[in-house]
Amino acid sequence: MQSAQSTESNLLPLVPAYESVLALAPYQTGKPIEELTREYGVSDVVKIASNENPIGCSPHVTLAITEQLGQLSRYPDGNGYYLKQALADFNDVNADQITLGNGSDDLLDILARSFVGADDAIVYSQYAFVVYSMLAKMQGAMDIEVPAQRFGHDLKAMSQAVQDNSNTKIVFIANPNNPTGTQLEHAELREFVASVPSSVLVVLDEAYIEYSPESNNRALLDEFDNVVIVRTFSKAYGLAGLRVGYALSSVAVADLLNRIRQPFNVSRIGLAAAAAALADQDFIEKTRLMNNEQMRWLEKQFDALGLGFIKSHANFIMVEIEVEMEDTNAAVIYQALLEQGVIVRQLEVYGLHNWLRISVGVAEDNMRLIDTLRSILTDD
Amino acid sequence: MQSAQSTESNLLPLVPAYESVLALAPYQTGKPIEELTREYGVSDVVKIASNENPIGCSPHVTLAITEQLGQLSRYPDGNGYYLKQALADFNDVNADQITLGNGSDDLLDILARSFVGADDAIVYSQYAFVVYSMLAKMQGAMDIEVPAQRFGHDLKAMSQAVQDNSNTKIVFIANPNNPTGTQLEHAELREFVASVPSSVLVVLDEAYIEYSPESNNRALLDEFDNVVIVRTFSKAYGLAGLRVGYALSSVAVADLLNRIRQPFNVSRIGLAAAAAALADQDFIEKTRLMNNEQMRWLEKQFDALGLGFIKSHANFIMVEIEVEMEDTNAAVIYQALLEQGVIVRQLEVYGLHNWLRISVGVAEDNMRLIDTLRSILTDD
Repeated sequence: MQSAQSTESNLLPLVPAYESVLALAPYQTGKPIEELTREYGVSDVVKIASNENPIGCSPHVTLAITEQLGQLSRYPDGNGYYLKQALADFNDVNADQITLGNGSDDLLDILARSFVGADDAIVYSQYAFVVYSMLAKMQGAMDIEVPAQRFGHDLKAMSQAVQDNSNTKIVFIANPNNPTGTQLEHAELREFVASVPSSVLVVLDEAYIEYSPESNNRALLDEFDNVVIVRTFSKAYGLAGLRVGYALSSVAVADLLNRIRQPFNVSRIGLAAAAAALADQDFIEKTRLMNNEQMRWLEKQFDALGLGFIKSHANFIMVEIEVEMEDTNAAVIYQALLEQGVIVRQLEVYGLHNWLRISVGVAEDNMRLIDTLRSILTDD
Repeated sequence: MQSAQSTESNLLPLVPAYESVLALAPYQTGKPIEELTREYGVSDVVKIASNENPIGCSPHVTLAITEQLGQLSRYPDGNGYYLKQALADFNDVNADQITLGNGSDDLLDILARSFVGADDAIVYSQYAFVVYSMLAKMQGAMDIEVPAQRFGHDLKAMSQAVQDNSNTKIVFIANPNNPTGTQLEHAELREFVASVPSSVLVVLDEAYIEYSPESNNRALLDEFDNVVIVRTFSKAYGLAGLRVGYALSSVAVADLLNRIRQPFNVSRIGLAAAAAALADQDFIEKTRLMNNEQMRWLEKQFDALGLGFIKSHANFIMVEIEVEMEDTNAAVIYQALLEQGVIVRQLEVYGLHNWLRISVGVAEDNMRLIDTLRSILTDD
C-alpha cells in the first residue's frame, strides 16, 4: 500500500457546483447485513431498513438468470427490446414512451440531468424522498422544499411554489411517499398537474405503487405531455440487487432521456430478470397480501407499546419514538436495535429526530423487532 | 395501445444543452445478435463488433453469481467493500482511491459531470472513443478534438490545446486507443501529464489494458494528483453483460466521484462476479495468449487479401476497405457481412468511411469472417 494521500487538492475548487455537493451528506443507505456482521460481530441479523421485499422475488427469476450465464461476456441489448415490449403491454403504452434505468435512481438522475440547469429550480415536498434535493444540489440548481401537510404533500402549496418560481423545471411527487407512506387522491393530483405550466415536468415517483394499486396515475400520461411516471423493480418485485427501473412519459421526453442515459445502463441479467418478474403477477399479489396482513399486525403492536405511527400505504411504516427519558430519541433506539441485530432506518436527514422508518418484514422479522423494541423500551 | 404521440413538445426547448444533445447521433452500439436474428432471420450469427471476450469469462464467475441468487431482493453494498478491497490489493492503492461504476461508461460520465460545466472544455484526440465528445455535448461544454498523428494521439498537440484553452477541465486519453488500437510510450505520456496544469484532470482510459500490460500507467497516480485511471470488467474479464468498471485516483477525486455516483450503481451480481473474475488471473493470461495468436493469424489473412490494417495493441483491429469499384466503401462491406450473419463495426462516426473495426474472435469466428470477406470481395 502506498501512503495515504491528502484529501486537499487544487483540482476540487474548480468543480462546478463543488460547494453544494460537498455540503451534501452522501446518501445514507440502509446498513448492509454484511457490514453489521463485520462491525459488531452480530450474526443473526434482521434488516428491515431498505423497503426490500422480505419474501425475495418470483421463482421464475432464477431460471431467467441461469439462461444468461453463458452470455455474460456479451453487452446487454442497449435498447432493452424484450423488456420494453413487456412493459408496454403491461402499462398500455407504446414502447417508445419507455426509458429503462439502472434502478429508478438512475431515471431520477437522468431526468434532473436532462431538464435542470444551474439557474433552474426543483420543487418537492418536505419529508419526500431525500434524493430529490440531492439532485438539485448536484445540478447546482435551487431546491425548493414545500412544507408538508400532515406528513404528506401539500399540493396547493406546491402549485403556488411552482407559480412563484418561474425557473422551476421539475416537480417531484412521491406517491405513495417515502418515508411517510402517505398517498394522494387522484382528483387532487390531476388538479395539481392541470395547475402548473405545461413546460414544467411533473415526475410521479411510484416506487411503491404495487402496494397501493389505487395510487396508479398511469391515466394522467394520456392527458398531459409533461407527466413522467417512474417505477422500479427494487421494491415489490424483489430485485433491488439487480438495479432495474423504468420511466413512462411522452415520446418526446423518452427520446431525450434515451439520448442522455448511458447506452448499456441496464445489465443483461437485469433485463432478463425484470421481464420474468413482471410476468409473475401472482407473486406480486402474494407480496401485497403478506404485506397488508403484517402491516395490520405491526400497527396493533405499536398501539400496544404506546408508540405513534403514520398510516402507511407502502411496505414500511414511520413510528414515533417518544419515550419518557429526556435524552432518549430515535437515534438511541436505532443504535440499541442495531446492537441486537435489528437494522431499521433513521430519519435524521429529514429532521425527523423522533421517528424511525421500519420496513415490513415477514412475521418472524416483525416479531423479532417488536420483542427487541419492547425489551429496549422497558429495560430503559 | 394508445395513439402514437407527437415528438414535438413545448417542454424540450427548455432543456439545458438541448440543441447540442439533439444534434448528437445516439451512441451506436454493436448490433445485438438477437436483433440481427429478428430483422434478417439469420440464425448462425458471429458478432465480432463490440470487443467482447469471445471465450466468455472465468468459470469461477458462475459460482459467485449462484451464491447471490437467494439475495436478489437485497440492495447491493453501496460501498462495494469486498470488491474495493480486492481491487486495492491488485492495484496497490488504498480502497479510498477507488470509485466503482456501472461499467466504465458510468465512470466517464461521473467524471464529466463532476468536473465539467457549461463554460468548460474537454480535450481529446481525433479517432479516440466517441463517448468523450458526447460527454462534452451533454455537459453543454466545448469539445476540442486534436488531430491524430498516424491514427494515434498527438500528445504534443494535445498539450498545446490544453494550454491554448484555459477552460479545459478534462483531457481524455485512451491507451490502448479504441477504435485504432494504438498505444502510447510511458515517457511520452509522463511528459504530457507534467506539461499540463495540475488543475486539469488527465483521464487515462485503460479499457484494454489487459491486452497490453506494458501500457499500464498505474505509477503515474503516485506522482500526479490529477491523473485518473479508468478500467473495466467488460473486455478481457468478459463481463460486458454485467456492467462493472472502476476508477483509480487521488483520495480527493475519489471522494468527489463517490458523492456524485448513484449510491447503488453496481449490482449485487456485478460486485460478486467482478471479484471472482479478478481473482482468476489465469483466465486473463489465457485470454491474452488466444488474442495474440488470433491477431497474428488475422494480420496474415488481411495481408493475403491485400487489405491494409493498423497494428493493434488490443483485442480488435481496424481494417481498410479499399476495393476497386468507386462506389464501394466500408458501409457496403459492413452490410454484406451483416446479411451473411457476421457483425463487425462501422466507423462512420469517426469519419473513417473506408475502415471497419473487427474484434478478434475465436479461431472459428475469425475463419468465418475471412471466408465471408473473401467471397464478398471476389464476387463483387
